[in-house]
Amino acid sequence: MKAEILAVGTELLMGQIANTNAQYISNRLPEEGVGVFYHSVVGDNPLRLKECLKIASNRADIIIMTGGLGPTLDDLTKETVSEFVGRKLVLHEESKNKIEEYFKRINRPMVDSNIKQAYLPEGSIVIENKRGTAPGCIIEEEGKILIMLPGPPSEMKPMFEDTVMPYFKEKSEFKIVSEILRIFGIGESAMEAMILDLIEKQTNPTIAPYAKEGEVTLRVTAKVNKDDNAVEILNQTINEIRKRLGDSLYSVGDKNLEQVVGELLISKNISIAIAESCTGGLVSSRLTDIPGISAVFNRGIVTYSNEAKQECLGVSVGKLEKFGAVSKETAIEMAAGVRKVSKTDIGVSITGIAGPGGGTAEKPVGLVYIALADENEVIYKELRLSGDRSRIRNMTALNVFDMIRRHISGRK
Amino acid sequence: MKAEILAVGTELLMGQIANTNAQYISNRLPEEGVGVFYHSVVGDNPLRLKECLKIASNRADIIIMTGGLGPTLDDLTKETVSEFVGRKLVLHEESKNKIEEYFKRINRPMVDSNIKQAYLPEGSIVIENKRGTAPGCIIEEEGKILIMLPGPPSEMKPMFEDTVMPYFKEKSEFKIVSEILRIFGIGESAMEAMILDLIEKQTNPTIAPYAKEGEVTLRVTAKVNKDDNAVEILNQTINEIRKRLGDSLYSVGDKNLEQVVGELLISKNISIAIAESCTGGLVSSRLTDIPGISAVFNRGIVTYSNEAKQECLGVSVGKLEKFGAVSKETAIEMAAGVRKVSKTDIGVSITGIAGPGGGTAEKPVGLVYIALADENEVIYKELRLSGDRSRIRNMTALNVFDMIRRHISGRK
Repeated sequence: MKAEILAVGTELLMGQIANTNAQYISNRLPEEGVGVFYHSVVGDNPLRLKECLKIASNRADIIIMTGGLGPTLDDLTKETVSEFVGRKLVLHEESKNKIEEYFKRINRPMVDSNIKQAYLPEGSIVIENKRGTAPGCIIEEEGKILIMLPGPPSEMKPMFEDTVMPYFKEKSEFKIVSEILRIFGIGESAMEAMILDLIEKQTNPTIAPYAKEGEVTLRVTAKVNKDDNAVEILNQTINEIRKRLGDSLYSVGDKNLEQVVGELLISKNISIAIAESCTGGLVSSRLTDIPGISAVFNRGIVTYSNEAKQECLGVSVGKLEKFGAVSKETAIEMAAGVRKVSKTDIGVSITGIAGPGGGTAEKPVGLVYIALADENEVIYKELRLSGDRSRIRNMTALNVFDMIRRHISGRK
Repeated sequence: MKAEILAVGTELLMGQIANTNAQYISNRLPEEGVGVFYHSVVGDNPLRLKECLKIASNRADIIIMTGGLGPTLDDLTKETVSEFVGRKLVLHEESKNKIEEYFKRINRPMVDSNIKQAYLPEGSIVIENKRGTAPGCIIEEEGKILIMLPGPPSEMKPMFEDTVMPYFKEKSEFKIVSEILRIFGIGESAMEAMILDLIEKQTNPTIAPYAKEGEVTLRVTAKVNKDDNAVEILNQTINEIRKRLGDSLYSVGDKNLEQVVGELLISKNISIAIAESCTGGLVSSRLTDIPGISAVFNRGIVTYSNEAKQECLGVSVGKLEKFGAVSKETAIEMAAGVRKVSKTDIGVSITGIAGPGGGTAEKPVGLVYIALADENEVIYKELRLSGDRSRIRNMTALNVFDMIRRHISGRK
């Protein structure tokens, strides 16, 4: 079954908000065997909305609409839909009572326009709204399904989960299950070359690459009968991909790099301290996003000034003068230094030039050194990054997490 | 001129990401007199994409496409568009050279599929991509305008700003100019009550409030002829709003709170050091997002453990034991301590419980103390925040920046 998600709302076309409802619904529907083939957004305008309904009903079996169910004058979704399907709007007593109760409960006067929300197309399945005043509904018409849900995500989501998902579960004969694989350290095209034969012969499961800043993801998707187990068919393909990509594949299950690193540190009980220069606390901040990290994260030190590098980390004046703050020598001293003052298992350091200022011909913007010290050794890596300040900082943080991950993943 | 934004990408239809590109573009286009009437999303499928192009060219004058310009097999936007407009794909030498240089710079092998990205429909205006390998283009065909941009927002946005906006500016007869006002410390409804009469009598400029986590923004929008000056008409309204909201209005011009604070610190040459506990480096990280901050930002210390608080900041064992790490006493000692060790003009501290664990009946999750020390005094503030870990951390950071802003804005 092909679905289209049709959102109604001028606030979307003005860019005030992103269409997160479409994202949410798209993410959930495949589980019940419904594939989303189109999203569209149109304003609160009956003529244009009717055109969109015509297009959607030509190309999709299921139309899920969000928005335009409010009490104000510009909320015209229901009127337009009822005209489109040729059904009268009739008063739904139960919804009317609920709206009246709702206004009593919040102790505000109810205006007539609120009762408008209790009118629904004749013969539709009503979707109760426990969080607001606008009920939704499901209309079945000539083999097509049309669903209306309110726009606010806090109302839409529970209505979708409590009524729409079970409705499709009942109807579905198969389900679609996906797993997200995350890769760091190989570019999108290089990765594709490594698994091209798998992608090309894909039927079930399918494999789809997707790149975002510095990272690549692969989505492996299997379609199975409603009562079958999809795990096995997914795992076969995932294992084959893992063989090809090795430890560049860092997560199966959509965990990001800092989550993987944070959980590794916690589960292996490896204590850590971080000394940052150009990332200015970004690495500490991301790592401390992980609940429970306080068990292993001892401290982070953001040493922007040379004195701070000397005082907090014991970096020697001689080295700083000879090699400069942005050098592998300083990175190594910082990593060993932060480990020593914090008495942690590992110490990690970052020093570099995030720009836009501060670059020279010899040490350009984007030159970054990262280092990791443990009880046996100090390893380092030189990065040459492009882009603006925010990209350089983000790419540096990703490289730091990847360095930690590769270093500790073999440990017991 | 009516525009449609047509995004190509299965990752959108699978709900992996929200269509933030459509939001961004929709937000920007009206400034050059272009109204966005439709958004659509379709997968990486040539047949369905061609149908969408047909629909879009029937109902819009301008089609802005995002996504599908990558090097992989499923990136078919350009092939489909060139077929749709009946133009050959030809090699754009300059883009080819840039792609080759790009791979040299990042020191990775270039694969053949990358060269595919340098092919563009014949006769199109090429849009340079400084952040990635996929150039975009503008095609003018029978009075319609078709624009292709890559999907990653970090590439799309600068290309849109540097080429697409100026392109429409050139064409437009009038312009819509907005100014974003940012407010911290007053809720959305309280603020609305303070300026309700202004909002109600609005015609030109219009005033639209919009709330996001912890902050409220007002967009003031004027529509004027292309060559007219919109500044005066905007400023009249802005000054009236400023009178009502006082110093809770912290920025005119869409600068965020950390930018305002960073620039105040730099312009007044006030040196700063930050000691963070529950925010884990978030405040340092945001402050060091500001270019040039190294002139005044001395260091940040993320003291997760009690020993770190003692060793790095000189917080006394007695106070820690008596009042606990999350207390106004510890916050005050941390602020004074980080100022002392760093020899800066001001020292700022944060200690609190971000959750989900660590809360007690007496000190629940969301209890945070922030403090600021200068040469004369130490001020502090107790926050009681709700929400999850990430919201608590974000709200804490905003409150810290607001505290710094209010403290230093009177200084010379």
